[in-house]
Amino acid sequence: MESEFIAYLRAAISPTSAGLLVGPGDDAAVLAWRNDRACVVTTDMLMDGVDFRLGVDAPERIGRKSLAVNLSDLAAMAAEPVGAVVSLALPRLGGLELAKKLYAGLLPLAAQFKCPIVGGDTNSWDGPLVVSVTALGRTTDGRLLRRNGAKPGDSIVVTGEFGGSILGKHFDFTPHVRLALDLAKYEELHAAMDVSDGLSLDLSRMCAESGCGVVLRLDRVPIAEAARELSRRDPNSGTALDHALSDGEDFELILATPQTEAERIVSEQGAVPLTIIGEFIAERGLWSVDSAGNRAPLTARGYEHRMT
Amino acid sequence: MESEFIAYLRAAISPTSAGLLVGPGDDAAVLAWRNDRACVVTTDMLMDGVDFRLGVDAPERIGRKSLAVNLSDLAAMAAEPVGAVVSLALPRLGGLELAKKLYAGLLPLAAQFKCPIVGGDTNSWDGPLVVSVTALGRTTDGRLLRRNGAKPGDSIVVTGEFGGSILGKHFDFTPHVRLALDLAKYEELHAAMDVSDGLSLDLSRMCAESGCGVVLRLDRVPIAEAARELSRRDPNSGTALDHALSDGEDFELILATPQTEAERIVSEQGAVPLTIIGEFIAERGLWSVDSAGNRAPLTARGYEHRMT
Repeated sequence: MESEFIAYLRAAISPTSAGLLVGPGDDAAVLAWRNDRACVVTTDMLMDGVDFRLGVDAPERIGRKSLAVNLSDLAAMAAEPVGAVVSLALPRLGGLELAKKLYAGLLPLAAQFKCPIVGGDTNSWDGPLVVSVTALGRTTDGRLLRRNGAKPGDSIVVTGEFGGSILGKHFDFTPHVRLALDLAKYEELHAAMDVSDGLSLDLSRMCAESGCGVVLRLDRVPIAEAARELSRRDPNSGTALDHALSDGEDFELILATPQTEAERIVSEQGAVPLTIIGEFIAERGLWSVDSAGNRAPLTARGYEHRMT
Repeated sequence: MESEFIAYLRAAISPTSAGLLVGPGDDAAVLAWRNDRACVVTTDMLMDGVDFRLGVDAPERIGRKSLAVNLSDLAAMAAEPVGAVVSLALPRLGGLELAKKLYAGLLPLAAQFKCPIVGGDTNSWDGPLVVSVTALGRTTDGRLLRRNGAKPGDSIVVTGEFGGSILGKHFDFTPHVRLALDLAKYEELHAAMDVSDGLSLDLSRMCAESGCGVVLRLDRVPIAEAARELSRRDPNSGTALDHALSDGEDFELILATPQTEAERIVSEQGAVPLTIIGEFIAERGLWSVDSAGNRAPLTARGYEHRMT
């Protein structure tokens, strides 16, 4: 029953979060707001059979992922998490136990990043599980990291490694919230976005928004071991590099910043590996260059929801 | 395709809304925030077969409802709408056209209540349609209307009429946003909530939160014509009053305020009909009293999601 679940939630969620004026159980949640900070809002919906497979993947990992993908979006804007709301469409049979397991995965991540669950909407139906999370954040010192600010000459800096996320990282990745808050201090950081649909596809989107092109150093793209594993398992699926360029759900960050600042950032930031993988250029389009300096057009590939 | 739909959305949504610093198309939306106003957040998920029937109900009405139910929650907190995000799980076939129709119903309501759609997440899958909306609002003058503030001796004031919403009102109701902002000016208004699951059930929840009971004047409950219609069609479904007490999705407001203030509010507010239907009492529980003064226990009935 919904009321029983709300009682569970109220007990599970610390009602003493700083700034949480009204938590779960009222018509809406209310958060105190500090002066002069803008409100950043992002939302992601995860569906059984698309973003996870109920019955195969542990519900705790599904719950964790539902918040993690939103925290990754907040990181891409250099926003400090403030709180989140969680809406569930649960199967009728076993829905209550399932909901508790989802929260068992979600709540530790919420605590880790000081992003309390402040409300939600818990439903049951005859369809598959859907988890929809909306996260709120605050800008830091009025700073906004958008995806449309890359300038020709900027280096492309990326966090972490790419490809093969489907083997586990898409559940277990750590959103780059802390790094992003650190990075926002660098004044010459022009743009940022998180890679959710594939490195080459998301890079092409950043270029389109910024009105520029990009040359990618293929030999510098950090390839995840999982990308190599996928390529070994099924060579027809492409090389490890193909996976790194086109697999979705890496949840790494792409940054655009002048070369000297890029080198400074790479040398100063220790907790997360950072790599310079190419350069933004004035000419539109996505280009690759190999270690011998040969430039060729690169096709943006990645995940898009297919609709007709 | 998702990118095509984002292009449609960007064109459909006015990017010039005051205070919208970043709209659809980035990793997150960003809203300017006025000093000293708290942030009110509410979310509702609508599912095919539960909250609407795709193929029977026009998609435009479904889209409108998905925002309207959230605006009703903001009204129940006396919050001024600021913006909303919309997440969709669309069927693969015809999903794009369906999404546009949902927005065709949603956007006029967003414009009417100055609640721009600032972002969202558009997905396709093999499951039924799900629409999840999160709305943000601002408190007005630091005023918060909660559901836990009803005091013994307060009158119960309700907006509108009750019952039979399933015949159409659950799609076409006007959320009481403007009335709520007017009402927030009355200092003696102790509590408010919106009726989404049934008058008697939601009244019992307000009592539980407020630590008091309630005596309902059955002869004063405003009964909607649709409630009479349902009772006529199927007398076994209950009397018109039964429908008024237990049908869900009225989206009317329940207010708690001292009797003199209640009478003042009823006489001063002209746009929306207001009725005093009883009184909060110190003794716990839900009670009815008929016109002859006979008091009897009243069972709280309404809609709850059934989960096991």
